[in-house]
Amino acid sequence: MSLTLSDIRQAAERIAPYAVKTPLLRLKNLDKALGCEVYVKPECLQVTGAFKFRGAMNKLLTLSEEERARGVIAASSGNHGKALAYAAGMLGVKAVIVLPDTATKIKVDTIRHYGAEIVFSTIEERFETAERVCRERGLVMVPPFNDEQIMAGQGTAGLEILEQCPETDAVVVPVSGGGLIGGLSAAVKAVSPRTKVFGAEPAVVPRYSESLKAGKRVKVQAHRSVADGLISLIPGDVCFPYVAAGTDGFAAVEEEFILKGWKLLVTEGKILGEPSGAITMGAVLQGLLPVKKTDKVCFFISGGSVSLEQLHALEGVEL
Amino acid sequence: MSLTLSDIRQAAERIAPYAVKTPLLRLKNLDKALGCEVYVKPECLQVTGAFKFRGAMNKLLTLSEEERARGVIAASSGNHGKALAYAAGMLGVKAVIVLPDTATKIKVDTIRHYGAEIVFSTIEERFETAERVCRERGLVMVPPFNDEQIMAGQGTAGLEILEQCPETDAVVVPVSGGGLIGGLSAAVKAVSPRTKVFGAEPAVVPRYSESLKAGKRVKVQAHRSVADGLISLIPGDVCFPYVAAGTDGFAAVEEEFILKGWKLLVTEGKILGEPSGAITMGAVLQGLLPVKKTDKVCFFISGGSVSLEQLHALEGVEL
Repeated sequence: MSLTLSDIRQAAERIAPYAVKTPLLRLKNLDKALGCEVYVKPECLQVTGAFKFRGAMNKLLTLSEEERARGVIAASSGNHGKALAYAAGMLGVKAVIVLPDTATKIKVDTIRHYGAEIVFSTIEERFETAERVCRERGLVMVPPFNDEQIMAGQGTAGLEILEQCPETDAVVVPVSGGGLIGGLSAAVKAVSPRTKVFGAEPAVVPRYSESLKAGKRVKVQAHRSVADGLISLIPGDVCFPYVAAGTDGFAAVEEEFILKGWKLLVTEGKILGEPSGAITMGAVLQGLLPVKKTDKVCFFISGGSVSLEQLHALEGVEL
Repeated sequence: MSLTLSDIRQAAERIAPYAVKTPLLRLKNLDKALGCEVYVKPECLQVTGAFKFRGAMNKLLTLSEEERARGVIAASSGNHGKALAYAAGMLGVKAVIVLPDTATKIKVDTIRHYGAEIVFSTIEERFETAERVCRERGLVMVPPFNDEQIMAGQGTAGLEILEQCPETDAVVVPVSGGGLIGGLSAAVKAVSPRTKVFGAEPAVVPRYSESLKAGKRVKVQAHRSVADGLISLIPGDVCFPYVAAGTDGFAAVEEEFILKGWKLLVTEGKILGEPSGAITMGAVLQGLLPVKKTDKVCFFISGGSVSLEQLHALEGVEL
């Protein structure tokens, strides 16, 4: 655990010319439903539509000249792959993204359009494929979350929240492997120790709830979730100690409440965030987090990776 | 034409305790598609989900004690009715909203939930019904746009835009009767004469394009538009001279381009605005407005009156 506030501040300076400082939106319309003063950090407005750009760009900028000349690689069909491809393109660094051969055409096209090379693999073998291509071509592997420079980049969002609203009482953060909440909680607790940081993860893959209870990293069974970006099975070993030290509670959110949170964000909040971000609102709707009417609570919306067709799932949901 | 900058500044002070100062969002992701530096004023985040709240609240606050004690009335099934009902409820003023008997249950429920009394009428007779009820009960009629205090309220959004980005080169505004663009252009031109103000209206009901060409108010034929909030047939007589004096160009936008603009706003901009707001992006996509790559252009998104079902219309639209 060597990540400090100074590292995160340096990351913020480093990525500033490239990243968007997303606004902190005050969504009064949602106060009643969520029982608190609602603020939203809409990372769907970030470059490539997700907070992942912060970490990927910080990582690239901390590589040596020699490493950047070799090029980078990642196995990801989601927001990390998009973010890395785009960040690499901005810096003129060669990027290879390993995609499962089941990836949708739009994902393939987007990543190719950003200038990255695509290597296809079966979904089961994509991490091995990435490792092999990485070795064979002498590339630098950029992990999606389990890395302190990635965490420092994600943590910059925490600095922004407190700059935009220093009186923030709590931040609710979507959690998968733990890179975002690890970096963000390190930033928030260093600047404002009284601000609470809560994690929200799908109840069907409760890797942090289980691990924190056990006091060590626990692997959970694979399961699909409507929060399709939050399906890691085990906390990252680099992330875990930061999360254990820097958070004030975890919510394992039922699928039904993830959908309700998503419907609230989209139809009442008017922000087209992804379900993996709206899980933060689901956590409060399910009554899993101690928020009060006078609390200023920031709901972290991780990104906007959602198609119009996916929204059909919301039509039958009751708020 | 007696509306001055000072009136609009007073309106801003008056409504400040009640209205949301909506942010000005910088949406870099849309720069390429729209060929300029894209800013969005998302009035879908305003109280009751539309800019209409500004005008309605300012009007109520400028009534005399005696008038407020009598109560207010409006014929509107859209954003104006919602805004007036809610603003009246906040101030403890009795409100009657005349709705067509075809109004959807959700609209009826929302307005009733805000505490207003509802009077039903046929769609053809709703204005006569409102006039009659207004007379019979001694209420005060609150028009949706053709009124200088309503225009002053809407104009407060123009002051905010220039405060949030003083270098704004152009503002593109959705237009129906002309209350918004009348008030907003008065504000913008008084504070920053070099900032251009452009109007966007549906090509199927081009009441301002025709009227400005003719140099007098022209009534156009009724027509449905996907921009369902922009279907006035003739410019308001109070609004028209302000619009003629304060705007730099008008775009009559084809339905196809309104849909494209809407798809861009929702799927790339991640903001769930209504099609009547997204017409501003449609105007630029259709090539109707002179914007340059280095121009800072604010697209005014009037509100968020849209259901999930309506979004189906976007699924086949090509960007």
